[in-house]
Amino acid sequence: MSVIYNRVALIGLGLIASSMFWAMKRKGLAGEVTGYARSSQTRDTARRIGLCDHVHDSAAEAVEGADLIVLCVPVGVMGAVAAEIAPHLKPGATITDVGSVKRDVIDHVGPHLPNGIHFIPGHPLAGTEHSGPESGFAELFDNRWCLLVPVEGSDAKAVARLRALWEGIGSNVEEMEADHHDLVLAVTSHAPHLIAYTMVGVADDLRRVTDSEVIKYSAAGFRDFTRIAASDPTMWRDVFLTNKDATLEVLGRFTEELFALQRAIRTGDGDHLHDYFTRTRAIRRSIIEAGQDTDAPDFGRTKASS
Amino acid sequence: MSVIYNRVALIGLGLIASSMFWAMKRKGLAGEVTGYARSSQTRDTARRIGLCDHVHDSAAEAVEGADLIVLCVPVGVMGAVAAEIAPHLKPGATITDVGSVKRDVIDHVGPHLPNGIHFIPGHPLAGTEHSGPESGFAELFDNRWCLLVPVEGSDAKAVARLRALWEGIGSNVEEMEADHHDLVLAVTSHAPHLIAYTMVGVADDLRRVTDSEVIKYSAAGFRDFTRIAASDPTMWRDVFLTNKDATLEVLGRFTEELFALQRAIRTGDGDHLHDYFTRTRAIRRSIIEAGQDTDAPDFGRTKASS
Repeated sequence: MSVIYNRVALIGLGLIASSMFWAMKRKGLAGEVTGYARSSQTRDTARRIGLCDHVHDSAAEAVEGADLIVLCVPVGVMGAVAAEIAPHLKPGATITDVGSVKRDVIDHVGPHLPNGIHFIPGHPLAGTEHSGPESGFAELFDNRWCLLVPVEGSDAKAVARLRALWEGIGSNVEEMEADHHDLVLAVTSHAPHLIAYTMVGVADDLRRVTDSEVIKYSAAGFRDFTRIAASDPTMWRDVFLTNKDATLEVLGRFTEELFALQRAIRTGDGDHLHDYFTRTRAIRRSIIEAGQDTDAPDFGRTKASS
Repeated sequence: MSVIYNRVALIGLGLIASSMFWAMKRKGLAGEVTGYARSSQTRDTARRIGLCDHVHDSAAEAVEGADLIVLCVPVGVMGAVAAEIAPHLKPGATITDVGSVKRDVIDHVGPHLPNGIHFIPGHPLAGTEHSGPESGFAELFDNRWCLLVPVEGSDAKAVARLRALWEGIGSNVEEMEADHHDLVLAVTSHAPHLIAYTMVGVADDLRRVTDSEVIKYSAAGFRDFTRIAASDPTMWRDVFLTNKDATLEVLGRFTEELFALQRAIRTGDGDHLHDYFTRTRAIRRSIIEAGQDTDAPDFGRTKASS
């Protein structure tokens, strides 16, 4: 493949930025890639592992002359970062982001951008429970979805170019409206994360069961929750605070349904439980058929060492 | 290793029985293994794939002359199966089970057993989301825990012999009191399963997000829930109905905590969220250190096909 952007600036150098860098390099999609992270420790690590062609000590320097700027910072600071770099953007440049919430990012980034800048919010649906510059890898986006959320007046050519980059990185790209994006993600990601965090916290809290018992016997189901609940705390705090309405709506429905199942347990209504569990099994089948997960038992987990 | 039981009878031929068979054969731990399943289709499948040295058409025939009988049926029918085989048990035989709930099994199986039979309830903490005779594999129990729950008057020699079998199969064995077992499992397994089933059902129900969107975008967290929620409906119905009190207690605590986190979202209390998420991350680390899961990102998932 050939170069899609001559100069790309990655602002924030965590799991996603790092994976984007390695994926762009794998296919030669970017001429030069500059980077910036707020923490000097992260910048040092990036320099040490060769993450970015050049790591700058300020966001303003990093974005200078860039054709594409990717904001890879927690959703809660997107607006502040946009304000900081806005005066330094090259006319005609495209700015995008990788945040898990889109309406809030649009509301907070958009107003800072000068005319002549193409703002195309985005969200790659990919990640792991690990974070930081050293956790990235080139294959993270392969066969995963990337949602682009063009705002009113987005230039079609600029959108097509950004789409080509994500496709080159390995993603399947779709466009979606911001509010719908936030609701879909509340269902597929935000509510499940909050629920996993909650369950892991409860297990840690129950005084009649020791932590070491919880840990020893986690393979029975709980450990899958702990993986989700090991995700980056800052990122997730910001997700919940900025996608408040949709998350609370889905959690409201969840609580309602959980109460109905609790009542079925209390009253001994086995048919209700059996019917419910049979229905959910079918959804798993669809996800495997859609190529979004492996059918290998237990995710084909790498054997835990003995 | 040498033969631990000359004759083993497996009653019920699903994932666990099938995995036990292959694991016993791998190490030559059993002389002859007989089997029985209620469904003739399951018995035919077992015969076709060579599961058990001999598959019988009745449980009474299968247990005849057996030194060890393993009940591998849903918890809700353990009592009925015990009543059926009790008159056919060889004096001095050991009978165990693999049910996920222990108090209920003890209450319903114990009374049927004649004197001179060693009853040692058990629970291997291993499984996958797949079920049926063809889903078993010899490595299922490797480095997983198996909990033995000896009842009053259990013969120490009989317990040691059963422990040797489970260790030969690959498990680490611990003994635990029945009620404590049921509470620990409510935390590490039963409540997480009910929560996963609930979330998957809610996703399927939300009218403003289509099923195909839920499926396409599941990689963002939701798909881990669908794996858990794909487990056998009959087995899980019985687990909740027979471990009612402990499950409802843990779910009560869960709901309480979930409400507190929802309130933090609603009021914008970012510190509360951040502290909570930081604490849960540490638990994940402990599970990996305890060798109960892989540290590979995303469980080292086999790449989903494109």
